Amino acid sequence: MATDAVTDLRHMQQALALGRQALRFSAPNPAVGCVLVSPSGEIIGTGHTHLAGGPHAEAAALADCRSRGLTAQGATAYVTLEPCSHFGRTPPCADALIREQVHRVVVAASDPNPLVAGRGLDRLRAAGIQVDFGLLEDEARDINLGFFSRMVRQRPWVRLKVAASLDGRTALDNGASQWITGSEARADGHAWRARSSAVLTGIGTVLDDNPRLDVREIETPRQPLRVVVDSQLQTPPTARLLDAPGAALIYSATTDADRAAALRERGAEIALKPGAHGKVDLPAMLADLAARGVNELHVEAGHRLNGSLVRENLVDEFLVYLAPKLIGQGREMMRFGPLSGLDEAVPLQFLDVAPVGGDLRILARIPGRDRF
Amino acid sequence: MATDAVTDLRHMQQALALGRQALRFSAPNPAVGCVLVSPSGEIIGTGHTHLAGGPHAEAAALADCRSRGLTAQGATAYVTLEPCSHFGRTPPCADALIREQVHRVVVAASDPNPLVAGRGLDRLRAAGIQVDFGLLEDEARDINLGFFSRMVRQRPWVRLKVAASLDGRTALDNGASQWITGSEARADGHAWRARSSAVLTGIGTVLDDNPRLDVREIETPRQPLRVVVDSQLQTPPTARLLDAPGAALIYSATTDADRAAALRERGAEIALKPGAHGKVDLPAMLADLAARGVNELHVEAGHRLNGSLVRENLVDEFLVYLAPKLIGQGREMMRFGPLSGLDEAVPLQFLDVAPVGGDLRILARIPGRDRF
Repeated sequence: MATDAVTDLRHMQQALALGRQALRFSAPNPAVGCVLVSPSGEIIGTGHTHLAGGPHAEAAALADCRSRGLTAQGATAYVTLEPCSHFGRTPPCADALIREQVHRVVVAASDPNPLVAGRGLDRLRAAGIQVDFGLLEDEARDINLGFFSRMVRQRPWVRLKVAASLDGRTALDNGASQWITGSEARADGHAWRARSSAVLTGIGTVLDDNPRLDVREIETPRQPLRVVVDSQLQTPPTARLLDAPGAALIYSATTDADRAAALRERGAEIALKPGAHGKVDLPAMLADLAARGVNELHVEAGHRLNGSLVRENLVDEFLVYLAPKLIGQGREMMRFGPLSGLDEAVPLQFLDVAPVGGDLRILARIPGRDRF
Repeated sequence: MATDAVTDLRHMQQALALGRQALRFSAPNPAVGCVLVSPSGEIIGTGHTHLAGGPHAEAAALADCRSRGLTAQGATAYVTLEPCSHFGRTPPCADALIREQVHRVVVAASDPNPLVAGRGLDRLRAAGIQVDFGLLEDEARDINLGFFSRMVRQRPWVRLKVAASLDGRTALDNGASQWITGSEARADGHAWRARSSAVLTGIGTVLDDNPRLDVREIETPRQPLRVVVDSQLQTPPTARLLDAPGAALIYSATTDADRAAALRERGAEIALKPGAHGKVDLPAMLADLAARGVNELHVEAGHRLNGSLVRENLVDEFLVYLAPKLIGQGREMMRFGPLSGLDEAVPLQFLDVAPVGGDLRILARIPGRDRF
């Protein structure tokens, strides 16, 4: 079979596009895409990860192939992540590709899951299948930063979202913040909520803004977990985030049986992670969220919790919406410092800048943070 | 002669490009470009405004034509601004075009100068020349917003430049601000200084940072006027901005003969514009700057003067450089407010966003402010 680099690239790009589609619902599984190409170069099946418990990308693509009355025998499979080799909620994908007698598997990135970690590729090679590894590896890793982070660092990929005026104010001094940005930016923000496993806020925002924290502005097949950092368990049982569909989880540093009971009554789970000074231990909270299968954690909090997360170096990237307006005095994005010199500033790298409605969306990342 | 819309557009775009080149030195004159095209469609001369006192664009283009041994007889002249009809430091350009017997003049924008204001076009028409008006008018006006502002509003076009971290801090609390942005952004900032007639700062910045305020990072044929808002005449005679080449002007609200004498000794001019509360009357200062021929005023000041200019609604556009870093606590971009509601926020429109080195440059304008 002729291996044409441009053809490989094109098919892998399609597999990546399929993988990205799965990002909104695949967690805790990685978002993976798969394209099957016949020996004559025809696309005979495509697939991506489904909701957890549903088929993985390879199984979905093989099923698509069968549903067309075709066979994958002798085909090339383009997969964005190393096929799994273990029995989880579904049988191993490597075995399925072997059973269907594909001829070649092109893999973008290896699976950081210690249960897979190269074994999927080995299994394919041992079955006599040609394996080509590393095509568009960075792009494939970038789609699944959350999954990689959880597997390698045992904590989620933490994205902090903030909406502010051009002069960096998130609200007036009196707390008024609705709405600084426009409706397009709010819908765009909900798309980022939707792809996250969990949305986190602080008790200050719960008491000030009483947010629902769910995904409303766009369609989604599942709601992210809603998480509150609430050291003193001050979340009112009437808080709107307890009304929204899906699970709510409150991290606390105090054991107040009455308050806890009232919140549990409303369906919330209370997790005790006491740290220093009567505050929630934020690294322990992130480890716990990872253990619960949270890949991407989306933070929408106020300047105090934002500042604590930055101070403890727990934020991986920042999603900043800037509105075309000036507010002058008001609340800041994040309170930390004071620094004693500019060399102590938190370094970032601008990854993407895009207009969203009349606002501006800036994605900035801590340099090197995505190299696990 | 066939008038082809696409041909007209192409030639006028070239004239606009020539006009933009003149922006760095034409003030107080507008930056104008001119392209001469022969009856057979050949470009036979190009020109733009020179340093004040030098030839205007039309005269430069006609001289270019003559220097090629050609004649402009029967030609079409594309001019970005209505040819002048009065004797200033140079003879009227309308007369020169008539004398050279051009056939047609295509004009982008009319001259807001009350000494011209349509009379240039009338004069051409009276001489039997075909005049077409309005092609790319908005683009032509945009190049000369400063000149238009001075003519129509009797005040300069005021651009406020600020460099800040992504979280909106221009300096640490201890004043440290060198350097928040990178060298490319600083050079870019100097290009905006260079096209301005004057660079303005406040006494706070003079005392904190002791800036030179001149154009250094790029080549320039002339230095902008350097202006300080210094109500109590606290500028030290040793201030570095008094060392830089070119003129320095200090607006004050106090008459302290000794201090004034010491500053005059160092070459500075003192202008008295007392307003309320012992402060400089900022609108009176802008009117005075316009009377001195300042088209574009480039502001690089601290949060206090920035805030005063915004509060008095005197800023037309904002040039914001955002560095990819977070500072947490520190100085804000501009201090005004507090607002009592978000509907009182100063509305802006993002005009342009561009990466400059590792930083981000955002140009934002008060909506409608450019409609004189």
